[in-house]
Amino acid sequence: MTAYAEVDTPAVLVDLDIAERNIDRFQAYANGHGLRVRPHIKTHKLPFLARRQIAAGAVGITCQKVSEAEAMVEGGGLDDVLITYGILGEAKLRRLRHLAERVRLAVVADNPTVVDGLSGAFGNGPPLRVLVECDTGAARCGVQTPEEAVQLARTIDDAPGLIFGGLMTYPRTGGPAGAQRLLSRTKALLEATGLEVDVVTSGGSPDMWRAHEAPVVNEYRPGTYVYMDRSLVLDSTCTLADCALTVLATVVSVPTPHRAIIDAGSKALSSDIRTMTGYGHVLGRDDIVIDQLSEEHGRLVSEQPIDLEVGERVRILPNHACVVSNLFDAVTTVRGGRVLGEAQVAARGRVW
Amino acid sequence: MTAYAEVDTPAVLVDLDIAERNIDRFQAYANGHGLRVRPHIKTHKLPFLARRQIAAGAVGITCQKVSEAEAMVEGGGLDDVLITYGILGEAKLRRLRHLAERVRLAVVADNPTVVDGLSGAFGNGPPLRVLVECDTGAARCGVQTPEEAVQLARTIDDAPGLIFGGLMTYPRTGGPAGAQRLLSRTKALLEATGLEVDVVTSGGSPDMWRAHEAPVVNEYRPGTYVYMDRSLVLDSTCTLADCALTVLATVVSVPTPHRAIIDAGSKALSSDIRTMTGYGHVLGRDDIVIDQLSEEHGRLVSEQPIDLEVGERVRILPNHACVVSNLFDAVTTVRGGRVLGEAQVAARGRVW
Repeated sequence: MTAYAEVDTPAVLVDLDIAERNIDRFQAYANGHGLRVRPHIKTHKLPFLARRQIAAGAVGITCQKVSEAEAMVEGGGLDDVLITYGILGEAKLRRLRHLAERVRLAVVADNPTVVDGLSGAFGNGPPLRVLVECDTGAARCGVQTPEEAVQLARTIDDAPGLIFGGLMTYPRTGGPAGAQRLLSRTKALLEATGLEVDVVTSGGSPDMWRAHEAPVVNEYRPGTYVYMDRSLVLDSTCTLADCALTVLATVVSVPTPHRAIIDAGSKALSSDIRTMTGYGHVLGRDDIVIDQLSEEHGRLVSEQPIDLEVGERVRILPNHACVVSNLFDAVTTVRGGRVLGEAQVAARGRVW
Repeated sequence: MTAYAEVDTPAVLVDLDIAERNIDRFQAYANGHGLRVRPHIKTHKLPFLARRQIAAGAVGITCQKVSEAEAMVEGGGLDDVLITYGILGEAKLRRLRHLAERVRLAVVADNPTVVDGLSGAFGNGPPLRVLVECDTGAARCGVQTPEEAVQLARTIDDAPGLIFGGLMTYPRTGGPAGAQRLLSRTKALLEATGLEVDVVTSGGSPDMWRAHEAPVVNEYRPGTYVYMDRSLVLDSTCTLADCALTVLATVVSVPTPHRAIIDAGSKALSSDIRTMTGYGHVLGRDDIVIDQLSEEHGRLVSEQPIDLEVGERVRILPNHACVVSNLFDAVTTVRGGRVLGEAQVAARGRVW
């Protein structure tokens, strides 16, 4: 295989034709259902792709951390950011305040401690919009009941410097029914108390084509949809042809007839495995399982002859695209099998 | 908990007192058994700790990739490097050649394709030492039999620009018996053909206190031993008090009486889980399991009341220290509960 011979391995290849098609396809779906789109940038971490999402019709972007938002805003051309995280602590609040001077900003909270901190930081300036995060079945963050949501929304509404901005959830995957039931009840309760619910925002790529089944939701935050990945192929959200991100690797050892070792290990593919078998899919080789990763080695095994030579290159579809983006300082952009250049992953490693 | 209040979270804390004690303890053990130590820098990726390992008595360092070696050598004070990887491809070979001009260098090979490439790059200059990598049971890279090792050693010995430098293995964990049997037989075969076996190098922190049980080995490459981690506590290689690297995290949500969410997810702790239960150990809280990570959230659950407050800080001992070092641009160095400063993780993300 001589494609991409000029690229040193391991490398992340991002096919922009495919990424753009994914962006446009979900935007068209959302437009057809009257849903606003606010992509989560955690998947690509690239300002230029965020601008492409906005150009396609997205209303703004979603970030998980203040530092991610900073990286995207510094990249230019982005002026509407939702941070779906409970921001705590002086250092982060100071940076959040600075960010609010530059873009239209909103954050979330699921407890009064976070609300107090936000109010302390924003009490004297232009107000900050705060959405109430609701647990609709994913059992991570979020208030547990509609009644709790109403109580926290009132707390926000009463807090100096803050405006209640609506409801946010990261739903349990497997269908939007739970989110619809809880969010619609919460919205009705809030409206009965006189609080307007501007935004009801949900997310998640696995259920993105069923987003319209939760009509209470008026904004959707897909992340992985821009690249897709093996997990989304396996759950039938997309096909292999929709996957924009792959890892280019070189076979460095073929110790036995049924085993080959590549130069992409957990530092390239990550050890995310969830309920899948193996750490990625070798394109064109359904018989191969990547059954073991150490940091710099991936082990490929097959019941058939492995039929790979030392020096040969393979392309791997990773289990989870977002975590792979976070492992590389730069990705190689390609179109139609040709290399365009390198893009610095501006928001890589932004954990604060 | 107010310790480390000045550090923003999530952060990696490296206790230098503990790290130095770990370095000195293994060096003393190795000295007592006539074993040379060549630490693998993948765990800390910090030039100043590599220099500390050399100061304690190590003969040089081990790196997995050319780019890691470059980062360490650029950091200064290191002049003897073994790269335990089969280097392939023009770009890497050019850099390897450049590196060889600056330090005493050796690499490994387990196949003739790698040997050919090395010979092509080093044929006209000062020779490069190449060790034969042997599979002694770990079933990753390495020649499969003593006879194969002899054949490859001859190929190296015959190749222009290369010198046969000895044998290298990353053994199967669980005891050095397999490595001893295969390496001693290989060494005897090589010597019978007139090839001198200078270095026989093995590695792995899990079996480091049993290194002397493979007397054919004269050099050992421990990596994780500098920081230790949860996996090494669980297999009794060390105790909790020997663990130098922890992740400082903040509780951002306590949605239910038995669940808390922290701001350290897979981007801070990695999703390495192997055969362990949970993604890390919360110091002082044996009842808590970190049962789920998303990229920026860690979920803590307990059958007892979770008894944590939003804003409170916890320290997590990660499952695997090396992969955590690779996720952070910088670590916070501490001694005796006090912050010393920040150290840039010079070799982070060096996958080439």
